Amino acid sequence: MISIEATDEELIAELAEHVAIPSVSRDADAATMHAGAQWLADRLTFAGGRIEPTAGHPVVRGDWLAAPGAPTVLIYGHYDVQPAGDPSAWTSPPFELVRDGEIVRGRGVTDDKGPVFIVLKTVEALMARDGGLPLNVRFLFEGEEEIGSPHLEAWVQAHADELAADLVISADGAMWRASEPSLSVASKGMVSLDLEVTGANRDLHSGRYGGTVANPAAVLAQILASLHGPDGAVAVEGFYDGIAPLTPERRAEIAAVRWDDEAYRADLEVPELAGEAGYTTLERLWTRPTLEIDGLTAGGKYTVIPARAVAHLSCRLVPGQDPDRVLEAVVAHVLAQRAPGVRVAAHVDEARVPAYTIAADHPAIRAGQAALNAVYPDEKVLLAVIAGSLPAATLFERSLDAKTLFFSFSTSDEQLHAPDEFLRVRRLREGIAAWAKLLSLLADGEHRLTGTRDPDSGAEA
Amino acid sequence: MISIEATDEELIAELAEHVAIPSVSRDADAATMHAGAQWLADRLTFAGGRIEPTAGHPVVRGDWLAAPGAPTVLIYGHYDVQPAGDPSAWTSPPFELVRDGEIVRGRGVTDDKGPVFIVLKTVEALMARDGGLPLNVRFLFEGEEEIGSPHLEAWVQAHADELAADLVISADGAMWRASEPSLSVASKGMVSLDLEVTGANRDLHSGRYGGTVANPAAVLAQILASLHGPDGAVAVEGFYDGIAPLTPERRAEIAAVRWDDEAYRADLEVPELAGEAGYTTLERLWTRPTLEIDGLTAGGKYTVIPARAVAHLSCRLVPGQDPDRVLEAVVAHVLAQRAPGVRVAAHVDEARVPAYTIAADHPAIRAGQAALNAVYPDEKVLLAVIAGSLPAATLFERSLDAKTLFFSFSTSDEQLHAPDEFLRVRRLREGIAAWAKLLSLLADGEHRLTGTRDPDSGAEA
Repeated sequence: MISIEATDEELIAELAEHVAIPSVSRDADAATMHAGAQWLADRLTFAGGRIEPTAGHPVVRGDWLAAPGAPTVLIYGHYDVQPAGDPSAWTSPPFELVRDGEIVRGRGVTDDKGPVFIVLKTVEALMARDGGLPLNVRFLFEGEEEIGSPHLEAWVQAHADELAADLVISADGAMWRASEPSLSVASKGMVSLDLEVTGANRDLHSGRYGGTVANPAAVLAQILASLHGPDGAVAVEGFYDGIAPLTPERRAEIAAVRWDDEAYRADLEVPELAGEAGYTTLERLWTRPTLEIDGLTAGGKYTVIPARAVAHLSCRLVPGQDPDRVLEAVVAHVLAQRAPGVRVAAHVDEARVPAYTIAADHPAIRAGQAALNAVYPDEKVLLAVIAGSLPAATLFERSLDAKTLFFSFSTSDEQLHAPDEFLRVRRLREGIAAWAKLLSLLADGEHRLTGTRDPDSGAEA
Repeated sequence: MISIEATDEELIAELAEHVAIPSVSRDADAATMHAGAQWLADRLTFAGGRIEPTAGHPVVRGDWLAAPGAPTVLIYGHYDVQPAGDPSAWTSPPFELVRDGEIVRGRGVTDDKGPVFIVLKTVEALMARDGGLPLNVRFLFEGEEEIGSPHLEAWVQAHADELAADLVISADGAMWRASEPSLSVASKGMVSLDLEVTGANRDLHSGRYGGTVANPAAVLAQILASLHGPDGAVAVEGFYDGIAPLTPERRAEIAAVRWDDEAYRADLEVPELAGEAGYTTLERLWTRPTLEIDGLTAGGKYTVIPARAVAHLSCRLVPGQDPDRVLEAVVAHVLAQRAPGVRVAAHVDEARVPAYTIAADHPAIRAGQAALNAVYPDEKVLLAVIAGSLPAATLFERSLDAKTLFFSFSTSDEQLHAPDEFLRVRRLREGIAAWAKLLSLLADGEHRLTGTRDPDSGAEA
């Protein structure tokens, strides 16, 4: 195991510097995003760390290619974060990393600044101990993951030669549970849109105009209510097209995963679990696509007929679904609903993320299992599904012809995208140990990456 | 006609002082509300103007009772205003009265600070010219009209003796149209509530939890969609109970009112008018109750399953409907809807305002017509319905056994409750002339109020 001299407090203090930069890709100005990127680049000086522009927020790049003949990996993560939302919903200020017992709390600490920090501390420790890394490593940290990576693909394609690698390892993603180490063999895709219903050219007094015009909020509710059937299934024609039926074998595998509906329900404090009929909770979570209403906005508490009502919708996709087709189907469904007296518009978000899979017997998965076994010797490593979406994985497959191993030390219960996002403190040391082990396993021995590339060949082509 | 020496600019500058006090009854602190009240009390020194506490925001009172043997009127208005909403939706800052050609713009200028100002300038001019008023006048300006006057009734009942009058004249209300003088013979009632759907104890990542729990925004949409039928009628059982059918005579009267659906539609810029089937636009506006969704709040633009989704609903009521029964029916309907996996709660607002009517041949209506005829000699005075709600009118009928004449110089198109609320500048002088005429007509001659009370008898009882 690699040893880290820094105390927990020192590690947290350093990570806190990055969390303090509110690099919210949806809202932040260019200077703030640049500061978030620069903080990472400053920690990659040994690898020529630098900021490179894209058509959107910049990426952070670096390359350490001093292991001739060894495999090459591309390490991926992101420095942007979700909006903090209502600050009053947070126990402590969102951009102030606060330790609270066994956790640290702050926006982005688990998605993805903490997991990226683990990578940085790992390579720092390896460089300090060995004067080098066991294999060639390229670094790519983007700034638009939380808005669907709209400019990453074009940038990666334009720089494919400089990014060539045998494997992508993602510091983004999340462990299935705090108690069980896991690797993800699939993640869901995503598309999203705004549904906007517009009525009069102004908010109208609900008395003085009531009964004469359609209410955009009421029409929006009717359209939204048409999206699901009474069985919980999505009622959009064509939504499920292309999805292979769940086989009895896969059902058995999922049934064998340790899972407790009641504990899950109790943690969320909902009266009962719910969803598409005919599937268990874990089957729904891992294998079924969804259509969620993420937000509603219209009028206010005072008595008006609002001029405009808007819903934000997102669909999580599974293998077989075509993101463009799903969006088209949802838009067609929405525009086909009866909506007298109003205008209905669908504004589709740019990002289209298909679902992603990596085979359970892929060499990278087996190396990842071995690395986790070394850090968590008493636990079986579970092969799980990330029900979230990791746009980068499918993008690297298309653009670099490389599979992605998700190797994150975030845990799925750590309030990702929500107020009071947190990271377990112990994950910092566990993560550094596992990353160091993984890199050495991929460099040598039975888990050595096959199909090794000459790290310089791409740059010369 | 009474003459006012002040120029328009001087009148506007004085009114601007009151508009500058953001007396938003829903949100403002006690000091701000007190300042709004004090401004009025300062203008009633000749009548012993003063602030009196209630269980909520205070009222402004005053009495000029130096016309023994003459009738007594109670003049009502309010100094509170609606929230300004999003300031960026305003052309000029909401609490800064700005003249813009033929109008002045600012929150509350037409509802109800401008119309109350007209009363103050009228009595000031009469006192200056005649050294007294033609009849006994009591003043009552409240500070909670925009939140449904929750404490006014108890206060009026406790002070009924000091408020005894032959007639209430309300400076609140609104003219039907800018082009036609009108008096209101009815106003709609109102009840309102929040509908709250709660799911998990936190916003959930729409991927990592999607498909396992019900989405509160989706359940809210389903409940809201159940509130109306495809014919536009309210689908709540019992909602229409107690309403007398629209007679052919009343239909004919309404059909005779000058009305242009296309001009109305074009002004609002809606694709078409809409509402309950089987009624004309004006029949719906004047004679049919409504259930509107005033606002929606849930989640945001980012990808979460929101923990909570809320709608604010309001019902406008017509004669025959019992406000308590209507609220009970709506709550029962809402709670009866299928809502697996979430909690549904209805939080009813305190205010319950029944509809109000005054007979077209009531002496006060006839005096009002004569006063308007004097100011607008070329126009027939229309008897209209205020589709808004004036809680004070039914309250005075119950508590003081006095009918209310709505005599407002607001016009219904002046963006009441919305951004860019405005008042036509010419209404200031028209209003003062008409109020002076009305008071003299009610004091003497064929329109003299009957059932005259000794203004002191109440206080002695």
